[in-house]
Amino acid sequence: MLMQIAMIQDRIVDYDELDEAYLDRGTYFGDGVYEVLRSYGGKIFLLEKHLERFARSLGEIGIEGVDIDEIREKIITAYNRASIDEAKVYFHITRGIGPRNHGMVGELKPNFFLTVTELGDFRGEKEHGIKVSTYPDLRWKRCDIKSLNLLPNVLARLDAEKKGCVEAILVSDAGEITEGSASAFFAVFASDKNLVTRPLGTEILPSITRKLVVQVAVNAGLTVVEKALTPWQAKQADELFIAVTTKDIVPVVEFDGVKIADGKPGEYTNALMKEINALVFSS
Amino acid sequence: MLMQIAMIQDRIVDYDELDEAYLDRGTYFGDGVYEVLRSYGGKIFLLEKHLERFARSLGEIGIEGVDIDEIREKIITAYNRASIDEAKVYFHITRGIGPRNHGMVGELKPNFFLTVTELGDFRGEKEHGIKVSTYPDLRWKRCDIKSLNLLPNVLARLDAEKKGCVEAILVSDAGEITEGSASAFFAVFASDKNLVTRPLGTEILPSITRKLVVQVAVNAGLTVVEKALTPWQAKQADELFIAVTTKDIVPVVEFDGVKIADGKPGEYTNALMKEINALVFSS
Repeated sequence: MLMQIAMIQDRIVDYDELDEAYLDRGTYFGDGVYEVLRSYGGKIFLLEKHLERFARSLGEIGIEGVDIDEIREKIITAYNRASIDEAKVYFHITRGIGPRNHGMVGELKPNFFLTVTELGDFRGEKEHGIKVSTYPDLRWKRCDIKSLNLLPNVLARLDAEKKGCVEAILVSDAGEITEGSASAFFAVFASDKNLVTRPLGTEILPSITRKLVVQVAVNAGLTVVEKALTPWQAKQADELFIAVTTKDIVPVVEFDGVKIADGKPGEYTNALMKEINALVFSS
Repeated sequence: MLMQIAMIQDRIVDYDELDEAYLDRGTYFGDGVYEVLRSYGGKIFLLEKHLERFARSLGEIGIEGVDIDEIREKIITAYNRASIDEAKVYFHITRGIGPRNHGMVGELKPNFFLTVTELGDFRGEKEHGIKVSTYPDLRWKRCDIKSLNLLPNVLARLDAEKKGCVEAILVSDAGEITEGSASAFFAVFASDKNLVTRPLGTEILPSITRKLVVQVAVNAGLTVVEKALTPWQAKQADELFIAVTTKDIVPVVEFDGVKIADGKPGEYTNALMKEINALVFSS
């Protein structure tokens, strides 16, 4: 008799007794898409925008049969149960469970997984700013899809951490900044009152916080200019910052070892943070 | 009190009671590398070559502290326990388990996972050949690393299956074939007795079966020419085939709907299969 078996660390396990998580296409291939939400003061922020992007990601990789209304309900149920005011809600859907085969083996049923955890405290980062370093953008050609294939992002972040930095800024083969390993990237040029960020496309994620920043820029007296910057150009900026759901805006005060302006968060960046804050608490 | 929670499908689970598999960086990021071995007649084939490549993959993504001798021992133990003559041995190592954060959170301990399963029966494919179709190569820039980030490979394969094909042949932005979604790709030009395959580089996996084919080519009367082909050039070939650990050589008799030569496996391809077979059973 054939004995299909598995091994977890040093432990031999009957294949049929494996937790389904081990046989998930998310594990074998990263064959799934995800979202990260946050709550402010006990209220989930921009749930519909995230669901909209999630539905798009699912469609782009051809995962069918997911009811977004059910996903919304699950998120709300789980969030309410956790009762964490400042929470991070992570969720993903994979194509399903089955024998490891790149193609379809029988019918696959999409798999949902979610966690609600407490957000870290980013006040220090927001008040004093962070250091960033550059790393080659090794990612695939569809970075507009929020997929579970994040190894290049991880490699970039690990490199940044080794350099004492909080985030890695990715640079394309053409020598242009695309975005952060897990954030959007912005530069302020004060003399022109320009807020520069890369235009959307397959090279970057359609960041929801990026959209928010673009939306409130005018209130901070800035004109948004969508164009790609090189690292050299970024270092000439008066202010730099990153934008990410979990922290909204975080000032960048050092870029590849070079201080930006006086090395303190800039006034426009602080103004944008206030604008986002106002928007959060009026929504 | 804060209540960190998780949800699997419709079921709310205490975060602390989650199976570790759910919190593995392999699941969140595809932050790991893998290998696939096969056995012929109760004997694992080319174990050392696979271990060598695995060690290189681990090194390239900076997973440290893995003892390859221990991995070898685990593979042999598990394979012997399964007692499957014609088996597929899949194994991976991820960077470890921890809260979802692209960077390092505390110390991570690499996680090993392995399955031994029965190989499918590929005699029909080998005897009659398969159909393949092309798909854009959307992968990252380090395809020489055998990582768990395989979504672009999956998308290519799903597209091929929709077209009634067994494998997808990936085509770069430059219009050149790189390799199959899970195989190396070869073309035979009979008039010159040339066996053409893409040179190694960061765009393709250093396939062990590719190496084997290159090694036995001379016995089949072929000269190996390492160069990239376009799909148009591939369609002019006298013979095409793919090479992959689990099936060694599989003839390709149709490429993007175009019959190759007379639509039957070619004589050089058959000769190479025999050479590999001889090598397998002499080793």
